[in-house]
Amino acid sequence: MSVTNEVLKANETYAQNFNFGHLSMPPARKLAIVACMDARLTVEQILGLKTGEAHIIRNAGGIVSEDALRSLIISHHLLGTEEFIIINHTDCGMLTFKDQDLRTQLEEKTGTTTTEPAHFHAFGNVEENVRRQVQRVKSHPWLPKHIPVRGFVYDVKTGRLHEVGEEAAQIAS
Amino acid sequence: MSVTNEVLKANETYAQNFNFGHLSMPPARKLAIVACMDARLTVEQILGLKTGEAHIIRNAGGIVSEDALRSLIISHHLLGTEEFIIINHTDCGMLTFKDQDLRTQLEEKTGTTTTEPAHFHAFGNVEENVRRQVQRVKSHPWLPKHIPVRGFVYDVKTGRLHEVGEEAAQIAS
Repeated sequence: MSVTNEVLKANETYAQNFNFGHLSMPPARKLAIVACMDARLTVEQILGLKTGEAHIIRNAGGIVSEDALRSLIISHHLLGTEEFIIINHTDCGMLTFKDQDLRTQLEEKTGTTTTEPAHFHAFGNVEENVRRQVQRVKSHPWLPKHIPVRGFVYDVKTGRLHEVGEEAAQIAS
Repeated sequence: MSVTNEVLKANETYAQNFNFGHLSMPPARKLAIVACMDARLTVEQILGLKTGEAHIIRNAGGIVSEDALRSLIISHHLLGTEEFIIINHTDCGMLTFKDQDLRTQLEEKTGTTTTEPAHFHAFGNVEENVRRQVQRVKSHPWLPKHIPVRGFVYDVKTGRLHEVGEEAAQIAS
């Protein structure tokens, strides 16, 4: 059986025990999170969040991409979230390559060039990357300054979040 | 206490009971999912997935944006996923507005115009939107044709996934 068919079978069990039908669209705890897609981050469990409590935005690296900004703008202005959290993590795949090397490898493997995606957003230092993402949110003109935006590195060996200060990003920006 | 401080306290408890330190970077079940950020979708639970089993990519709407394509390319080529699932859902916030209306509203509210994000990706029909996202994945030159890409609408009132066929997208494309 394909993994897709296996998870569909698991969904039948989930639906049989389902009791979240009363939840409404806006996140109950007014929180939005940007985190990495990494399989080791079950974001809701890491943060003790229940179904219905927070928007979860995820991509390779936990990058505040144009698409993550789009999602945060919708989250705040249409659905009322008032706090943002950015989560990157140790042992991230984004630390293992360089954008141009991957692009060259894909062009050779597929025989095709494309400008979409324009960037892969690989990075060399996870704390510095978190600071950059926090600054990206804080400097967007459509995201109000009163929203707290805090950045963390999740340690995949301990399950613990470590907060990243802003100092270096302020110097760099 | 801020919600951020509350979830940090919850993370301390999570870390005390943590037993996932042995997991490695590639998703154990070689699966990647693109889903909406909606708070009512705890994606791992909906699909019966355990920590470490699948990449989870999420944004407003469950859109196969340039950033989601970036994440899927990294997921497959660097971390070995071999099946993709797209999940949109009923009662989605993206059904409640039109891109240009939101842009105008934000420009008036903030007194600032910006081209980032270039689009909000609001949509009027969730099944048709799922078909478009599946086609976006299938037509990308760096995502191989042998990867199964299946699209679903999650019903927030029942907890059940409903598969979306491809016929209309094939006609439209």
